[in-house]
Amino acid sequence: MPNKKEFAKERERLNKLILDNSGIEIKRFFNLDTIIYKDGKLSARIKEMLGLVASLVLRCDDCIKYHLLQCKDRNLSTEEIQEIFSVGLIVGGSITIPHIRKAFEFWLDLND
Amino acid sequence: MPNKKEFAKERERLNKLILDNSGIEIKRFFNLDTIIYKDGKLSARIKEMLGLVASLVLRCDDCIKYHLLQCKDRNLSTEEIQEIFSVGLIVGGSITIPHIRKAFEFWLDLND
Amino acid sequence: MPNKKEFAKERERLNKLILDNSGIEIKRFFNLDTIIYKDGKLSARIKEMLGLVASLVLRCDDCIKYHLLQCKDRNLSTEEIQEIFSVGLIVGGSITIPHIRKAFEFWLDLND
Amino acid sequence: MPNKKEFAKERERLNKLILDNSGIEIKRFFNLDTIIYKDGKLSARIKEMLGLVASLVLRCDDCIKYHLLQCKDRNLSTEEIQEIFSVGLIVGGSITIPHIRKAFEFWLDLND
Amino acid sequence: MPNKKEFAKERERLNKLILDNSGIEIKRFFNLDTIIYKDGKLSARIKEMLGLVASLVLRCDDCIKYHLLQCKDRNLSTEEIQEIFSVGLIVGGSITIPHIRKAFEFWLDLND
Amino acid sequence: MPNKKEFAKERERLNKLILDNSGIEIKRFFNLDTIIYKDGKLSARIKEMLGLVASLVLRCDDCIKYHLLQCKDRNLSTEEIQEIFSVGLIVGGSITIPHIRKAFEFWLDLND
Repeated sequence: MPNKKEFAKERERLNKLILDNSGIEIKRFFNLDTIIYKDGKLSARIKEMLGLVASLVLRCDDCIKYHLLQCKDRNLSTEEIQEIFSVGLIVGGSITIPHIRKAFEFWLDLND
Repeated sequence: MPNKKEFAKERERLNKLILDNSGIEIKRFFNLDTIIYKDGKLSARIKEMLGLVASLVLRCDDCIKYHLLQCKDRNLSTEEIQEIFSVGLIVGGSITIPHIRKAFEFWLDLND
Repeated sequence: MPNKKEFAKERERLNKLILDNSGIEIKRFFNLDTIIYKDGKLSARIKEMLGLVASLVLRCDDCIKYHLLQCKDRNLSTEEIQEIFSVGLIVGGSITIPHIRKAFEFWLDLND
Repeated sequence: MPNKKEFAKERERLNKLILDNSGIEIKRFFNLDTIIYKDGKLSARIKEMLGLVASLVLRCDDCIKYHLLQCKDRNLSTEEIQEIFSVGLIVGGSITIPHIRKAFEFWLDLND
Repeated sequence: MPNKKEFAKERERLNKLILDNSGIEIKRFFNLDTIIYKDGKLSARIKEMLGLVASLVLRCDDCIKYHLLQCKDRNLSTEEIQEIFSVGLIVGGSITIPHIRKAFEFWLDLND
Repeated sequence: MPNKKEFAKERERLNKLILDNSGIEIKRFFNLDTIIYKDGKLSARIKEMLGLVASLVLRCDDCIKYHLLQCKDRNLSTEEIQEIFSVGLIVGGSITIPHIRKAFEFWLDLND
C-alpha cells in the first residue's frame, strides 16, 4: 500500500507547513475539523460517510482520499462505499464521475 | 404543519409538470433518483443523511427541505440532524450558514 | 404573460441601477456579455442553448429565465428545451431538479 | 432603512434558533467566524472586503448583504464597493450578475 | 496523438473498475449518461456542445477532454470550439481560464 | 525559484496558444481581466488580495498561484497572506484545505 502511505505522509508534511506558519484562527479551525468527526449522537463511522459524500459532491480528490482512509479504518465494506458513491453520483451528476473513478481505484488499492 | 404540506404539494405539482412534458430520459433519471435512496447495504435512514449533507454543502434549500422531510419520516432526532449540519458546516464553510438557518427553522416546524 | 413582462422589467431596472453606479470595467463586461451571444460560426440560437445549459448546471434561476426568454424569441420548441434540460440534469445531477421545476413552469407560461 | 433593520433582525432570530439547538461544535464555528474578521495584520476593513468578494463569487445573497452592512459600518464608499464587485464579476463571470443586481440595490438603500 | 489514446484508454480502464464493483444503480446512471447524448430533437452534435460548455463552467478537465473527443468525432471546427469556450468564459468567469488553457492545448493536439 | 519561473512560463505559453486561436471576444475578456486589477479607488495591492481569496474559495490552484505571484510583487507579508487564507477557510470550509496546503508551499518557496 505505498499509495496510502505516501498520501498520508504528504498530507502531514503540508499540514505541518500550514500550522507552523499560521495564527490561532487556522489552528482552531483544524482542531474543530477533527472534533466534529468524533462519536456523538451519530457514530464516527457515519460521520465519515457524511464527510465522504460531501467531499464527492464538492469534487475534492484529496478530501475524498482522506475520508476513504478513515472509512477503511472503520471497516466499511466495498458495497457500502459503492452505495455512498451512488448517492453522490445522483445528487452531483456525471461531473462527479472522474472523481469516482480515482476514488474507486484508491479504495481498491487500500483493500488489496 | 402547513409549511410541510405546502412544500410537499408544490413539489408534487411541479414534478408532474416536468414529467408531463418530458421524454424518457428525464423520467428514468427521476426513477433512479428514487431507487438510490432505498435500503441496500446501507439503510434508507443513512442514505437520507447522506442526501441531506450533500444538499447542504451544495446549498440547495429545496433539496435540504426534501431530505429533512424524509429524515423526519425515519425518526431522526434533532441531535442527529444538528450533527449532520455540523459536518456540512465544517466541510462547506460559513457560506452554508444561511441555508442552515432556514433548515433549522423548517426542521423545528416539523417537530412542533 | 405577466410573469415574462415583470421579469424583464425588473431585470432592466436593476441593470440600470448597476450601470448608473459603475465604472468602465463593469460596463465593458456587460457589453461583452451581449456580443458573445451574437451570430458567429455558431448561430445565436445555438449560443442561447449553451447559455441555458451553463446557467442550469450553475443553478442560477434568474440566468435560466433570461436564456429561456431568448430561446423563446428564437423559436425553440418545448422538445428542444426539454432535451437541453436532460443534458443539464445528467451533468449536474439531482441538485438541478428544483431549478428545472421552476424553469419548466416559466417556459410553459411563456408558451401559453 | 427598513430593509436593513429587517434583514438584521431576521438574521439574529434565526441565529438564535441555531445556537439554542446546537452542540458545542456549531457554537465554536460561529465564534471563530466572528474572530477571523477582527483587526489583525490586515484591518477589519480589508477583511470585510475579502468576505464580500468571497460571498459574491460563491453567490450567496444573504452573505453578501451581511458583509455590505459591515462595509457600511466601516465607511466604504460606493466606488470602493463597485470595484470589489468588478473583481467578483471578472473572476466569477456573468452568473454573478443577478447577485450584483440585488447587492447594488441593497447597498444604495443603505446609503439613502 | 498519444495524448488522445492514453486519455481514452485510462478512462476506459477506470470505468471498467467502477462497473465491475458497482451495483445496478451506477450501471443505470452510466447507461443513461450515454443515451442522453444521442440524436433526438437536438442532434448529437449540438448535445456534445452542450456537454462541453457545461463541463467547462463546472470546471472539470476530464469531462472537457471527453467532450472535446466527441466534438472532434463530429467534426467541429476550431472556430466553433472557440466560440463555445467564449460562452463558458463569459458565464463562468476568469476562474475557467486555466481549464480553457488545457482544453485548447488538448484540442490543438487532436487536430495536429 | 524554479517553481515560480516554470509556472509563469507555462502560463504564458498556454495563454499565447489561446490568444493565437481566439476571436475578439476572448481577447477582450483577457484584456478586461488585466485592467480590473489596476489601481483605482482600491489599490492594486488590495485588488490582488480580493483576487486571491476569490480564487481560494472557488478552489482553483492555478488562479491561487497566479495571485500569490502578484501579491509577492506587491510585498505582502506571510502574516497578511495567512490572514487572507483564514478568511477563505472560514467562508469556504475544510474543502479549501488541500488548496491552502499547496498555496502555502508555493508561497514559502517564493520567499526562500
